[in-house]
Amino acid sequence: MNSSITQLWQNIAENAANSSQIMRTLSTKQKNQTLVALAKEIDKKRDFILQENQVDLNNGKAKQLSAALLDRLSLDNAKIDQMIAGIHQVIELPDPVGEISKMSYRPSGIQVGKMRSPLGVIAIIYESRPNVTIDATILCFKSGNTCILRGGSEAIHSNIAIYQCIKNTLNDTNVPIHAVQLLEQTDRSLIHMMGQSPEYVDVIIPRGGEGLIRAVCENSKVPVMKHLHGVCHTYIEKTADSTMAENIAFNAKTRRYGVCNAMETLLIDKEIAPNLLPSLSKRYHDKNVELRGCEQTCKIIDIIPATEEDWQTEYLDAILSIKIMDNSDQAIAHINHYGSAHSDAIITNDFQQAQKFMKEVDSSSVMVNTSTAFADGFEYGLGAEIGISTDKLHARGPIGLEGLTNEKYIVIGQGETRP
Amino acid sequence: MNSSITQLWQNIAENAANSSQIMRTLSTKQKNQTLVALAKEIDKKRDFILQENQVDLNNGKAKQLSAALLDRLSLDNAKIDQMIAGIHQVIELPDPVGEISKMSYRPSGIQVGKMRSPLGVIAIIYESRPNVTIDATILCFKSGNTCILRGGSEAIHSNIAIYQCIKNTLNDTNVPIHAVQLLEQTDRSLIHMMGQSPEYVDVIIPRGGEGLIRAVCENSKVPVMKHLHGVCHTYIEKTADSTMAENIAFNAKTRRYGVCNAMETLLIDKEIAPNLLPSLSKRYHDKNVELRGCEQTCKIIDIIPATEEDWQTEYLDAILSIKIMDNSDQAIAHINHYGSAHSDAIITNDFQQAQKFMKEVDSSSVMVNTSTAFADGFEYGLGAEIGISTDKLHARGPIGLEGLTNEKYIVIGQGETRP
Repeated sequence: MNSSITQLWQNIAENAANSSQIMRTLSTKQKNQTLVALAKEIDKKRDFILQENQVDLNNGKAKQLSAALLDRLSLDNAKIDQMIAGIHQVIELPDPVGEISKMSYRPSGIQVGKMRSPLGVIAIIYESRPNVTIDATILCFKSGNTCILRGGSEAIHSNIAIYQCIKNTLNDTNVPIHAVQLLEQTDRSLIHMMGQSPEYVDVIIPRGGEGLIRAVCENSKVPVMKHLHGVCHTYIEKTADSTMAENIAFNAKTRRYGVCNAMETLLIDKEIAPNLLPSLSKRYHDKNVELRGCEQTCKIIDIIPATEEDWQTEYLDAILSIKIMDNSDQAIAHINHYGSAHSDAIITNDFQQAQKFMKEVDSSSVMVNTSTAFADGFEYGLGAEIGISTDKLHARGPIGLEGLTNEKYIVIGQGETRP
Repeated sequence: MNSSITQLWQNIAENAANSSQIMRTLSTKQKNQTLVALAKEIDKKRDFILQENQVDLNNGKAKQLSAALLDRLSLDNAKIDQMIAGIHQVIELPDPVGEISKMSYRPSGIQVGKMRSPLGVIAIIYESRPNVTIDATILCFKSGNTCILRGGSEAIHSNIAIYQCIKNTLNDTNVPIHAVQLLEQTDRSLIHMMGQSPEYVDVIIPRGGEGLIRAVCENSKVPVMKHLHGVCHTYIEKTADSTMAENIAFNAKTRRYGVCNAMETLLIDKEIAPNLLPSLSKRYHDKNVELRGCEQTCKIIDIIPATEEDWQTEYLDAILSIKIMDNSDQAIAHINHYGSAHSDAIITNDFQQAQKFMKEVDSSSVMVNTSTAFADGFEYGLGAEIGISTDKLHARGPIGLEGLTNEKYIVIGQGETRP
């Protein structure tokens, strides 16, 4: 390991740990004032940010990045307006830090409850999308956390320009200058060092491709909050309203193809499949969605046979696999086995089936009579999200301000001692 | 790796994963009926359990285990009565599974909230205390989880006897027979395999010595819920009532020495140290507690000088380190730096100091005007605990039924699709 890189990381880690002690003491007012100043600073420096972004775009074109990557990388005045609007949205959100709940007296006389606190130091690793630099900063900052940001190398000039605005703001508003640190070197060994530093970093949030996320998890001694896949299902139960079922199934697949909350597999009860599938498949066909079906499905509509691999694939594309189910037990078992604990929906008009599905499906979002496309921090009222967790521990689903905090016990006595 | 051990683990892991799908569907009534039957079975088989425990005790004596270890290992009728009482306590506790909270309508028309669910498969690794076999079983079972238990090798005969009662009960009450599995081989390689099986095991809870816990964490790809240390502090702020401060400081240190919630370091404000320390040190002296002080402390009372190492040591013994503080900022910084995020208390009569301490100390239990000895699942009203977590993610502090569950989002619509 390069020793100057090791020293660089050590400095960053120590600065973060020291900042985090001060971050947890800031008042909501102080945090909001800094965010207001940040919005102004970004507005003031928009020409500089756009100019640096142009350097990244030119480099990206020279490297022949795909059109999709260049699109994510590129900024313009409208996107900067969105960043500023995002900052104002986070200012408006309630501060989760210090929230007290469930205080009650115990027979011993002590009063026991919980108080929400910042997690501490959060490391975020993300792809080449400069807007994430602002999103991650403002969510971590408002929730009283210190963050270490590592963006994709293709966006480095844009990120450094945005980071310059962040540093100016932190400095001018008298909050810890190291509350936000961007890794200006995109050396991969820094990611490895993060994962080896549980004494400094409290959680790592990787956002990006599966390869990156697996690499981060593989060696990490620091807990990781992540989602690997979005293999989302819609199960049309036999009592479903046909029109509702069709509309939801169509929306969940076709609203956007490349997003993690898009449906990848449609499960449909054998009793209503013959009635529903022909018209539904026509709608998909008109939208150029490729359908792949189980054996029974292929007897009803003329589509490509699905293979075992289809049931576990996140297409992120205009492809849908369809499987016919004998009953809800089979559907729930299929989802818990092949799904990725992201978002899964049932369409039903049977009360007990709805209750059963909500209890038994082990996904971070379980839905009844609506589209998996709603699985999103804004739609859930979190205001913003830093990602969606499909883990079992800590916060599940879209992670907003609350997901970046924990709850400690607080105990208030009047001099009690324990016998 | 021995291939028969690998196959053994594969079977156990698959059985656990399959059971966990059924466990999450059980009603509270079913779970309680099984627990009632388990209490009866333990009662019926007490002679058998005691006889097997005698085998462990004889082996332990032959191996010249310490008196403390033999004491933890030994069972008698009174301890079996306690196990049975423990089962009835857990029956009485509310079932956390299915609890719905924070449901509200969003502007889109969907209703969003959270529902509590079992974590899934929990592996628990513990020392040679046969009563933990029952405690872990009943807490995991009531919270809808499947568990894999790995007790200390010295207790293996006792554990297998208790496990026999558990298996009989699971079988007789028609719940998944693999809801609880005890590793009857105490081969350490099985612990390694657990940590390499994130597709089967959702969380590992190690209980025991620091060496074991570090070994489990070091290589684990499965999240670990743990507490490594209990370096607990009491800070006597300058406005503290002297009598209250003395009583609490005395209780926190001397109630029991070998427990994780015992105070290890006393921090005391410089303004009241000269007044308080002489009488307090006399009480400790009468109880044969060895005192080690910072330079300023040693000017007030004649005790051994403390070294840097003392501030980070969990004595688990009749030893206390004492340090004089300039103010509460210094005390909070000391606790956040040297503490282990377990339980830390302030004694004060200043409202703002109490508020500040609760907000800024980053421990799993933060206490005001009471003894750290209260940091305990029973005292907090959890009914029972499986351990105390000093981690930052998921549940912190004493882990009871709720800490063995997570919250998923539930979303209820009336046919909404997302534009």
